[in-house]
Amino acid sequence: MEDESLVSTILSGDKRSIARAISAIESADPAATRMLKAIFPRTGRAVIVGITGAPGAGKSTLVDGLASYYRSHVLKVGIIAVDPSSPFTGGAILGDRIRMQNMATDPGIFIRSMAARGHLGGLARATTDAAAVLDAAGYDRIIIETVGVGQDEIDIVKTADVTVVVLVPGMGDDIQAIKAGLMEIADLFVINKADRDGVLRTEREIESLLSISERPDGWVPKIIKTIATEKSGIELLAEAVDEYVSYLRSGEKSPDGRRALVAEHRIVEMLRDRLFQLALEKGTSQKELRDLARSVADRSRDPYSIVDEIVCRLGFGPVV
Amino acid sequence: MEDESLVSTILSGDKRSIARAISAIESADPAATRMLKAIFPRTGRAVIVGITGAPGAGKSTLVDGLASYYRSHVLKVGIIAVDPSSPFTGGAILGDRIRMQNMATDPGIFIRSMAARGHLGGLARATTDAAAVLDAAGYDRIIIETVGVGQDEIDIVKTADVTVVVLVPGMGDDIQAIKAGLMEIADLFVINKADRDGVLRTEREIESLLSISERPDGWVPKIIKTIATEKSGIELLAEAVDEYVSYLRSGEKSPDGRRALVAEHRIVEMLRDRLFQLALEKGTSQKELRDLARSVADRSRDPYSIVDEIVCRLGFGPVV
Repeated sequence: MEDESLVSTILSGDKRSIARAISAIESADPAATRMLKAIFPRTGRAVIVGITGAPGAGKSTLVDGLASYYRSHVLKVGIIAVDPSSPFTGGAILGDRIRMQNMATDPGIFIRSMAARGHLGGLARATTDAAAVLDAAGYDRIIIETVGVGQDEIDIVKTADVTVVVLVPGMGDDIQAIKAGLMEIADLFVINKADRDGVLRTEREIESLLSISERPDGWVPKIIKTIATEKSGIELLAEAVDEYVSYLRSGEKSPDGRRALVAEHRIVEMLRDRLFQLALEKGTSQKELRDLARSVADRSRDPYSIVDEIVCRLGFGPVV
Repeated sequence: MEDESLVSTILSGDKRSIARAISAIESADPAATRMLKAIFPRTGRAVIVGITGAPGAGKSTLVDGLASYYRSHVLKVGIIAVDPSSPFTGGAILGDRIRMQNMATDPGIFIRSMAARGHLGGLARATTDAAAVLDAAGYDRIIIETVGVGQDEIDIVKTADVTVVVLVPGMGDDIQAIKAGLMEIADLFVINKADRDGVLRTEREIESLLSISERPDGWVPKIIKTIATEKSGIELLAEAVDEYVSYLRSGEKSPDGRRALVAEHRIVEMLRDRLFQLALEKGTSQKELRDLARSVADRSRDPYSIVDEIVCRLGFGPVV
C-alpha cells in the first residue's frame, strides 16, 4: 500500500481506495494505522448512525430505506453491514451481496460487509476505523448495521453518534431481557412492521422501561413506528436522527460529551490489543502459550500463576 | 475472606461458601485469585455443559429438565444462568429468581445468575471461574446457560466441555446467519418445541450446514428433538452429552484436546486484562485517559499516536 497516494485518493472519495483501505484495516496491516493517523484530522464531519435489534426485525430493509431517503436529499451514504458471529458466508452476508449489486450503481452510496473473521484487534475497532475512512472520504451519513443482539453488537453500535434499536411487535419470552440490554444504548427506538398486532403493547413496554431509567445526557429516546417494506415512517426516523444529533452537538463541548466517551473506550481497546501483541513478542510465544495451556488442561499448573509469571517476565515485577 | 477456611469449606461442598466465592469472583476480589489457585488442582472432574440459542428457544425449561434428569441419577448439578446484556434486573434474572426458589430446596442443586455488571475481567472469565468452584465443590454436572446469541455468549459456552445449541422450528429471516455463527461451536443441536410445524425443515437446514463444514476433531454433531415443557427428549439429550464427552476424552491426551484449547484462550484473556490493569497503574491513569479522549473527540490528537505513547511509557520502546 503506497501510503501517501492512498491517503489522497481516499480524501478525494475514490471508492476503490476506500475499499482497499478497509481491507487493510481488516487484515490489521501496519500501513492501515499510518493511513488512519493521516486521515484522522479530516474525520468528525459525518453523522454515524448505528442500527441494531433482534433477528428478523427488518433492519436491512430499514437501512436501505434510510439510505434512499438520504440520497434523495443529496447526501452521500456509507453502509457498513456487520455480521459478528458468522464464520461462513451465510444468510446475511449473501443478502448484503445482493444489496451491494443493487446499490453499487449509485456513486453516492458505498456498501460493505464486515464479518468477524480475520479482524485482529476486534470487530468494533475495525468497524470504527472503516467508518473513519468513509467519514474522511466525504460520506455525510454512515450507517453501521449489526445482525444480532449480543455484547459485540452493543460494542459496535456504541461507537456511533446515534444508536437506533429496532424492535417488532409481539416478540415473546426472552425479548424483555434483550430490550433491557438494549435500553441503555438506544437513542431512538424503531418499532418496525408496525402494521402487525401488538404495536401498542410494545410501545407501552418501551415506555415503561424508559420511565424507570434516566440518561445522564437528559435525552428521552423517541419511539418511531415504521413499515420498512412500504417505506413508511422512514422520514420520521431520519428527522429523529437529526434531532438527536442536534441535541448531542449542543452539549458536545462538555467534558463528558458522547464522542469523548467513545474515544476513551476506543483508546482502551486499542491499548489492550497492543499490550497483548507486545506480550507475545517479549514475554511469551504462541508456542509456549500452547504448552502452558496443556499443563493447565492436565491440572499440573494453574492459569492464574502462569499469568503472574508472564507479567513478571515483561518487567512488571512480582504481583500480589 | 479468610482464605484457608473458605477453600476447605468449598471443597467440602458448603453452599454458602460457594456463593461467597462466586461473589468474590464477580467483584474481582484478589482473594478470589488466591482461592482459585488453591482449588484448581481439585478441578477437572465435572462435566461442563454450555447451553445457548436464540431468544425464546426455551433454554431455561430445557436446563431445568436436564437438571431433574441428572438428579434422578443421583448426580449433583450446578446451574449458572448468564445474562450478558441485561443492565437491569430484567425478565431473565427475575425468571431465574423464581427457578432458584423452586430448586433451592434440593441440596444437590446449586443455581446462580450472573449478569454483565461489575465483572472486571469479563463475564466469560467469571463464568469459568464460577464453574471451577462448583467443580472443586463436587458438582458432577455444571450447566452454563446463556441468554442470547452474540459473541459474548459464544465466548462463554466455548469454555464448556460440551456446547449445546438450542433452536426452534420456523424461525425466519436472520436466523440462518445466527445458525451459521453457532454452527462452529455446537457439539449438539437441540430442536426444541419439536411439536411445532417446520421441524423437518429446521433439521434439514442444520444438516445442510453441517455437510459443508468439517470439524477438526472429526465429531459429527447430533441433532436431538425435544419438547422441554413435556420433558420429552431430555433423556436423549443427556445421553448425547455423555456420548460426546466420552468421544472427547478418548482424544483428551492429544495436544490439541479441547480443554487445552479452552485453557489457552483463558490464559490469553487473563493476560490481556492484567496487562491493561498494569498500564493503568504505570503508564497512564483513568483521568489522563479521559483528557486524551477529549483531545481525540475534538480531533486535536489521534488515538493511534496516543496508544504508541502510552506503550512507550511502559518501557516498550518506540513502535513502528
